[in-house]
Amino acid sequence: MSRGKDGDGVLEPEIDGASSLSLEGICAQKRQQAQQLLGAGELWLIAARETGVRPEPALQLILPCDFTWDAFVILTGTAAIAIVGRYDAPGLPAGWEVISYDEDPGDALRSVLRSLNPRRVLIDSSPDHPLMDGLSHGLYLKLQSLLPGITFNSAEQLLGRLRSLKTPQEQRLLARAVRRAEEDLTWVAEILQPGMSEREATSLLQDRLRADSLEPAWGWQGCPGFSFGRQPSHAGSGDRILEEGQLVHVDYGVRMGGYCSDLQRVWLCAGEPDLGLNAAFAAVRQAIDAAAAALRPGARGYQVDAAARAIITSAGYPEYLYATGHNLGRATHDGGPLLGPRWARYGRSPEGSVEAGQVYAIELGVMVEGAGYLGLEEDVLVSDSGAVWLSEREEALWKLP
Amino acid sequence: MSRGKDGDGVLEPEIDGASSLSLEGICAQKRQQAQQLLGAGELWLIAARETGVRPEPALQLILPCDFTWDAFVILTGTAAIAIVGRYDAPGLPAGWEVISYDEDPGDALRSVLRSLNPRRVLIDSSPDHPLMDGLSHGLYLKLQSLLPGITFNSAEQLLGRLRSLKTPQEQRLLARAVRRAEEDLTWVAEILQPGMSEREATSLLQDRLRADSLEPAWGWQGCPGFSFGRQPSHAGSGDRILEEGQLVHVDYGVRMGGYCSDLQRVWLCAGEPDLGLNAAFAAVRQAIDAAAAALRPGARGYQVDAAARAIITSAGYPEYLYATGHNLGRATHDGGPLLGPRWARYGRSPEGSVEAGQVYAIELGVMVEGAGYLGLEEDVLVSDSGAVWLSEREEALWKLP
Repeated sequence: MSRGKDGDGVLEPEIDGASSLSLEGICAQKRQQAQQLLGAGELWLIAARETGVRPEPALQLILPCDFTWDAFVILTGTAAIAIVGRYDAPGLPAGWEVISYDEDPGDALRSVLRSLNPRRVLIDSSPDHPLMDGLSHGLYLKLQSLLPGITFNSAEQLLGRLRSLKTPQEQRLLARAVRRAEEDLTWVAEILQPGMSEREATSLLQDRLRADSLEPAWGWQGCPGFSFGRQPSHAGSGDRILEEGQLVHVDYGVRMGGYCSDLQRVWLCAGEPDLGLNAAFAAVRQAIDAAAAALRPGARGYQVDAAARAIITSAGYPEYLYATGHNLGRATHDGGPLLGPRWARYGRSPEGSVEAGQVYAIELGVMVEGAGYLGLEEDVLVSDSGAVWLSEREEALWKLP
Repeated sequence: MSRGKDGDGVLEPEIDGASSLSLEGICAQKRQQAQQLLGAGELWLIAARETGVRPEPALQLILPCDFTWDAFVILTGTAAIAIVGRYDAPGLPAGWEVISYDEDPGDALRSVLRSLNPRRVLIDSSPDHPLMDGLSHGLYLKLQSLLPGITFNSAEQLLGRLRSLKTPQEQRLLARAVRRAEEDLTWVAEILQPGMSEREATSLLQDRLRADSLEPAWGWQGCPGFSFGRQPSHAGSGDRILEEGQLVHVDYGVRMGGYCSDLQRVWLCAGEPDLGLNAAFAAVRQAIDAAAAALRPGARGYQVDAAARAIITSAGYPEYLYATGHNLGRATHDGGPLLGPRWARYGRSPEGSVEAGQVYAIELGVMVEGAGYLGLEEDVLVSDSGAVWLSEREEALWKLP
C-alpha cells in the first residue's frame, strides 16, 4: 500500500498530465457529474451573490466565474440554467442556458421552476459541513419569498458525493499537489537549523510558493504551521526559536491547479531519538496504518476513526481531540464523510460511508514531554480494494540533516 | 468640492500616516465602534466556521483571525466573548474573553447567553445585502437547535452603520487606496496604444500590483476591467484590440491595507472628440455632480440616485441599469445605504439614510455609438457639509498621450 511504485500504480505516471487541465474544464466535468448524481425529479438550486467576497463553495465547483448581482444556478439531470444579472451574463462558459435580468430575477426564476416542475428542490444548506452550507440565511429568506409554496431540501447528500468522488483528473491534480508539498518539505529540511524561528521557517516555504505563483493550501495566515517543541494550533507559526533536542513539527499543504494537499511531518533537531520518541512515533505510525486499513468502500467515517484512535489510547497516550481524517479537494477540509468520532460538534458528518474515488488526509499525533508534538499526516486515495498512498510516508522519525 | 487642496483639506496631509495602521489595530477600533453602536440590551451573535474558505464579512471587520471549527463571537455594549475550538483559541488578539471547547460548544454558548440575558439577539442575516448576510442557513438551523427559545433579529441596521461609518483611520486608508489607483491609471495611460488588447492592458496593471504585493479591489478575475469600444461587463477584460477612434474605458480599484478604491476612467484613443462624445461626457459629469450635491447627511439613497438618473434621461440617453453609488470599505460594494433606484432586486437597501463619515463610489455612464462606453466613477467622503472628493476628477474627456 505504498505510493504508485508498489501499489496499484495508477497515479505515479499520470501526474505530469495534470498541468494541462484547465479549471474551466474541471468545472465542466463536475457539472456533468452533478447532473449524473441528481436523482429523477431532483433540481439543485444554488443562490449566490458578490461571490468575489463571499465565495459559494459548491458554485465554485461547477462554474469558474464570479457573480456580482444575485445569481440563481439550476441543475437537473438534463438542464443547466443560470439566471444572472445583465453584466454577469457574459462571464458564463459554454454549456449553460443563460437568462439575464435587470430589475428583478423573480419572474424568470418562477418560470424556470414551473417548466422544470421538480419533485424535490435541493439547496446548499448543512448544519454540519461548511463546504455544503453555501446558502446564506438572508438569501434563503429571499428564495422563500421569490418561490412561495416550494419546499426546500438539503443538497447535503448530493454535495457530499459530488465533492468527494474525485474524477481521474481531480485525482491527478491532488497527487500533484501532494508531490509539490513533499518537494518543498524536503527542500526546507536542508535549511532548518537551531536558532531559526518558526516564522522564518514559514517565510522560506511561502517565498518558495510565491516564486511559482502558488498558494498555501489553507491560506497565508496559518499555512505552513511550524511548531518547535510545542503543541500546534490553527493560528500557525509563532515566535519560537528552534533548539537542539526539540521536535520540528509542520502542517503544510499546497493549492495547485485549484486542489489542495495536506501533510504533517516531524523531524528531530540534533541528537538521537530516545525510547520515548521511538515509542511515540511507532504508535502514531501504527494508528495511521490502522486508519488506512479500515478505509475501505462501505466503512463508516466513525469506524475508520475508531480504528486509529484505539491504537493511540491502548498505547497509553491521551486521546487526540480532533477527527482522524477528512476529505481533500478544492479545500483542505473538503466535503464528504468525516473520519471522526461521534461528537456533538461533528453532527452527522462521521456517519457517511467511504467510497472508491475519495481522497483523504489521515492525521494524528501525541505530545512527547520535553520534545514537542509528534504528529503525522498522510494523503490517500480510496480504490475499490482499499487505500492507496498519495504521499511518500515518513517511515521512521526523520532527523534534520 | 474638489479634493483636499480646495476642499475641506482634511484628507490630503494625513494619507501618509495610513501605512502605519495595522489591520489588528483597525479591527480593535471597529469592535469598540460596534459596542458603541449596539443599543441597550442588544447582543450581537456571529456564528462562523472554516473562515479561510468561507469568510464571514462582519467577523473580518472586528477580528483579524480565521476560525476552523464552529466559532461563536458575542458582543454587547460591555462584553466581548469568543467561544471557539481549542486549536483556534490561540489566534485571538488581546481584549477578548476566550472560551475554548473540544467536543461541543453548546453548554458554553447557552451559559454565556443566560448570564448576559439580552433583550434582543442580532444575527448576520439580510435578504438585501451580501456583506451583512454572513450567517449561512445551516448554521442558522444549528443556532436554533443550540439555543431553543431564543428569537433572532437581523443585525442589518447595526452592520450597515458599522460598515459604512468610517473611522478617521479607515478614511485615510481609503484615501490612500484611491491615490494608488490614480497613480496606476496615469502610469498605464502612457503605455496604452492602438494594437494592444484588453488583456494586455490588464496584465500591465496587475503586474504593477503584484510587484508591490497589492491586490485588485475586486479580485484578479475582473479587476481591472478594460473595455475597448464596447459595453463593459462584470466579466472584465476580453480579447478586444484597441483601434483608433475608440474609447478606452477602465473600471479599476486597489485593495491596500484591507481597504478598496473603485474608479472608472475613460480616454479617447487618437483623434479629437466629436460633438457626440463631448455631449455625452458633459451629461455623465453633470450627473455625477448632481449625485455628489445630493449626497448630504439625511438624504435617502434612492433620492441621491434619482438626482443623477434624471440628468441622464433628460439629456436623452437611456437609463443606466445599475445603482448610481455604493459604499466603499473592506469590500468594493460595502454595506450601508445603496444610492440606487427602488427596484425589486435592491430590496430595502436604497431606503437607508446618508450619514457623515461614509465613503461612496459614484458611477454611471452612457454608450456612444461607434466609440464605446463613456462611464466615470469618482470616490467621495460624506462630511457634515456634504461630499468631499477623494479622487482627482476627470474634468474633460482624456486622450491617450
